Amino acid sequence: MIVNNSVSAPWSKEEFTKQLLALGKYYHIHHPYNKALNSGLLNQQQIQEWVANRFYYQIMIPIKDAAIISNCPDREVRRQWIHRIIDHDGTKNDEGGIEAWVQLGLACGLSRDAITSLTKVLPGVKFAVDAYVNFCKSSPWQEAVCASLTELFAPEIHKERLSNWPEHYPWIDQKGLQYFRNRLAEVPRDVDFALYNTLEYFKTRAAQERAIEIVLFKCQVLWSLSDQMYLSQLSGSK
Amino acid sequence: MIVNNSVSAPWSKEEFTKQLLALGKYYHIHHPYNKALNSGLLNQQQIQEWVANRFYYQIMIPIKDAAIISNCPDREVRRQWIHRIIDHDGTKNDEGGIEAWVQLGLACGLSRDAITSLTKVLPGVKFAVDAYVNFCKSSPWQEAVCASLTELFAPEIHKERLSNWPEHYPWIDQKGLQYFRNRLAEVPRDVDFALYNTLEYFKTRAAQERAIEIVLFKCQVLWSLSDQMYLSQLSGSK
Repeated sequence: MIVNNSVSAPWSKEEFTKQLLALGKYYHIHHPYNKALNSGLLNQQQIQEWVANRFYYQIMIPIKDAAIISNCPDREVRRQWIHRIIDHDGTKNDEGGIEAWVQLGLACGLSRDAITSLTKVLPGVKFAVDAYVNFCKSSPWQEAVCASLTELFAPEIHKERLSNWPEHYPWIDQKGLQYFRNRLAEVPRDVDFALYNTLEYFKTRAAQERAIEIVLFKCQVLWSLSDQMYLSQLSGSK
Repeated sequence: MIVNNSVSAPWSKEEFTKQLLALGKYYHIHHPYNKALNSGLLNQQQIQEWVANRFYYQIMIPIKDAAIISNCPDREVRRQWIHRIIDHDGTKNDEGGIEAWVQLGLACGLSRDAITSLTKVLPGVKFAVDAYVNFCKSSPWQEAVCASLTELFAPEIHKERLSNWPEHYPWIDQKGLQYFRNRLAEVPRDVDFALYNTLEYFKTRAAQERAIEIVLFKCQVLWSLSDQMYLSQLSGSK
């Protein structure tokens, strides 16, 4: 719901895009935990835990995307969005992103059951992911689409993993990194559509500022996942 | 939610199936309005109104199916169910069921806008369809799948339309009946999967009786659509 009452003039599409891109500074690529992960500072068990925790996010993606479709009366948008569910759930001939993440886990030495049983998932990780899914279930579809715009920053983090992990973590079978390679191909198409819809829907300055809030919220969800991992593994709190 | 406390022994799968099939007597094929429709008793304006009202049901189907997917943590089920959304929303190469219904409306002499604007949709039709969609959004996915089992009875009603309408309503361009032809191909595959899941999930007698209640509820939704049309067109109440 758009409750901001700003009476400033709307940003141009260029300026609005610039404001959205500026949120990259809150993206979890800058989190100390992610920096440690991508600098080779984690041991095998820590990486396994990260993969197993992040799996909870992966399995909730199609649930979230189906909620968006279920809230959307625009058939054209649904037709564009549905491939996201298929990308993650897969089909008979292509197992999709969730299975690709399982393969990453196997490549890191986890058993399939250790991943899919969700027993390693930290409560705070569940809370953050569920907050995102609940936001998408209960908000107008345009707001949920807007929340996906953290994908503007995703190619960089995937590229970083693909470029650094083989060096830092040679014990991970490189076939296991296929998820990141797939996402590099899928994300630009997805984010173009989400950005187009966001620029079209959030028209007033108040609405545009609401869009900024939404992307910031999504950055916080991802940041929180890293917080939980940091607390569990690197802070010495246990 | 299963609240029935029946302590009787569960029905065998054969008996449970038989009990489900026995609900066919409540299917709207037996409604006086449907009988009038399929006996050639309606005029062009009445048929147009039926098509325009039923369109509201058609457009809510993918919304309902996406809700089921969004509530379903079982990836295999989601992979099976998603084709229902695609069947209705269509793809670039196949326009799908919603557009096929628009084509039926055009074949009956309605303009596209008269159909898609929803201005002809009766409030009671919206209430009944929304009751179904809300049930599917708020119930466990297995109950929403169960509710689709009125499809057990759908081929008969589609066949009846395909066989009777060309004779009774020769002014309807027969190309417009493609929706019914498509559904004759799609429904058996869909209903097999829904029946399989229902037989698997509703195991105790209490649960099986709950399944009966659910299919009865769905029969009532469809019956109510005919009630609204009957009241509006045939009862002389206006």
